[in-house]
Amino acid sequence: MGLSERALIERIAALTAVRAGIVVGIGDDAAVFDDDPATVATLDLLVEGVHFRLRRRDAGELRDVGHKALAVNLSDLAAMGAAPVAALVGLGAPPASLGAEEVDAIYGGMEALAARAGATLAGGDVTRAPQLVLSVAAIGRMPEGARPVLRSGARAGDVLAVTGPLGAAAAGLLLLEDPLLATGLPEADALRAAQARPEPRLEAGRALSAQGATAMIDCSDGLVIDAARLAEASGLAVTIDLDRVPVAPGVARVAAAAGREADVLAATGGEDYEIVAALPPDATWPFGRRTHGQSALDELTAVGSLTEGSGVRVIRGGREVSLPRQGWEH
Amino acid sequence: MGLSERALIERIAALTAVRAGIVVGIGDDAAVFDDDPATVATLDLLVEGVHFRLRRRDAGELRDVGHKALAVNLSDLAAMGAAPVAALVGLGAPPASLGAEEVDAIYGGMEALAARAGATLAGGDVTRAPQLVLSVAAIGRMPEGARPVLRSGARAGDVLAVTGPLGAAAAGLLLLEDPLLATGLPEADALRAAQARPEPRLEAGRALSAQGATAMIDCSDGLVIDAARLAEASGLAVTIDLDRVPVAPGVARVAAAAGREADVLAATGGEDYEIVAALPPDATWPFGRRTHGQSALDELTAVGSLTEGSGVRVIRGGREVSLPRQGWEH
Repeated sequence: MGLSERALIERIAALTAVRAGIVVGIGDDAAVFDDDPATVATLDLLVEGVHFRLRRRDAGELRDVGHKALAVNLSDLAAMGAAPVAALVGLGAPPASLGAEEVDAIYGGMEALAARAGATLAGGDVTRAPQLVLSVAAIGRMPEGARPVLRSGARAGDVLAVTGPLGAAAAGLLLLEDPLLATGLPEADALRAAQARPEPRLEAGRALSAQGATAMIDCSDGLVIDAARLAEASGLAVTIDLDRVPVAPGVARVAAAAGREADVLAATGGEDYEIVAALPPDATWPFGRRTHGQSALDELTAVGSLTEGSGVRVIRGGREVSLPRQGWEH
Repeated sequence: MGLSERALIERIAALTAVRAGIVVGIGDDAAVFDDDPATVATLDLLVEGVHFRLRRRDAGELRDVGHKALAVNLSDLAAMGAAPVAALVGLGAPPASLGAEEVDAIYGGMEALAARAGATLAGGDVTRAPQLVLSVAAIGRMPEGARPVLRSGARAGDVLAVTGPLGAAAAGLLLLEDPLLATGLPEADALRAAQARPEPRLEAGRALSAQGATAMIDCSDGLVIDAARLAEASGLAVTIDLDRVPVAPGVARVAAAAGREADVLAATGGEDYEIVAALPPDATWPFGRRTHGQSALDELTAVGSLTEGSGVRVIRGGREVSLPRQGWEH
């Protein structure tokens, strides 16, 4: 970009005024309306060749693209603690590539996820475009009595936690880029699925909200970047302990084969769509209490802390480590 | 498209279920939520080279693109009788073409319109793309006590009306394509502005809703096509009288110079974003009552009627005329 994504967003926010009816505008996971319970809304734009590549252009691949376009939006609602109500879908595609089979695959992938999430694909737009473009706006509502959990509510002393293991989506991308890495790897399918079909953590988001999380963000660009955003929005510093970051099964072997460090891949890989949360230390959180899927917070793990100050610090073995500079973009 | 736009939308609607929280899904100008007063939401996707062309790529042109991307969405809210609350904006652009000046122009154009409409640009997404792509989702609320006016509510015997003169946007496009047509034409600037900066008829939509319009649609693809959509959704036939279609100033001269018929250009040209409405004949409507801008329904004009049956009939001088087949796409 001529401007960094961050500079762009700051410039756009400075150009725009927040008017009646809106409580939170540009800058959080979703916009917040001033109704009660609050409506929240978010929009993402996914462009072929930038956010995804189609290798075979078959039904399975298009279904995954549809799924993921909706999933990343529902994940933003999850990070507010909201329940999805509707999604609007803008689809652009080259005319020749949009027959009945392709439409069924793309919208079928979205509809299956919408059904599980209790949301309606309620409208949108279909148009010609030089490549596949998917724009999804998701609109949700907070549960009765609950207020949206913003990025900015964390307090010094809060625990930084994540709702599940990380690194699977990044490892899955490495497998897609170099299929030889998958040789003899039992987790190969699961890792590729984590990349292609992330599941938004809607129940986990609502459970964290109900139990008093002070700030949340979805982990789309990697734990380090997203935790830094949460800390900055809250006016705090954040420390992440690599030794405590939960690494998804199979990631260590893929990382080793690719010459990467597993904990760094997990902490910076992105696209896992777990929720990163700030939790008051005086509450009882179910860390390490595995219920084998009976609770949405089954795999909630403390990975760091929020303190007075600014910036992000990553430690391993008690000592600060320097990670390769992460951009703000995929 | 491999499928016509209409076949696509029918297929998508058949693939998707309407779930709790949504009253009207795919198929109207906007989705309708089951809250009270109702929330309504719509999304459009505009792609460079398909929906607009950039000739100079200067600030004025980018400002117009921003304006129009928001305007077409607000127009969908106007056609429900709603008041806009928020818009979410997805912007895709080639990195090199997105500096501070370009961002200021695109979002400046949107923000100026948002300010007049009382809406907040409340979020969205910025990303790389091979060409300029703008996706806007607009979310509005019905006034207290008012219900959204759908396409499907017209009754046999209703008057078909339009909120203002037509053809200006189509004539403006002809001028942009062939600048010589503008020679000596006093209305040239106004016609080009009608094409580049359409104004959503928000007040007119709310006034028609308050006074009992039974069905509304915004006139994006031309009076004939949009009236046909309204009639079909209502299970009725529609007759349009070309002799009564209000033709915008200057359109007759542009049409003559381009070898087109002015009334046909006005009735089929599209992109005027006036509202087409079905009005009960037993109410008092301000047809022909010019208040010189004091009323939003200043230029409300009866142009036809809705009757039992199906299909669209266009008459001139009391006799049916056959128009060139209009597609469902821009």
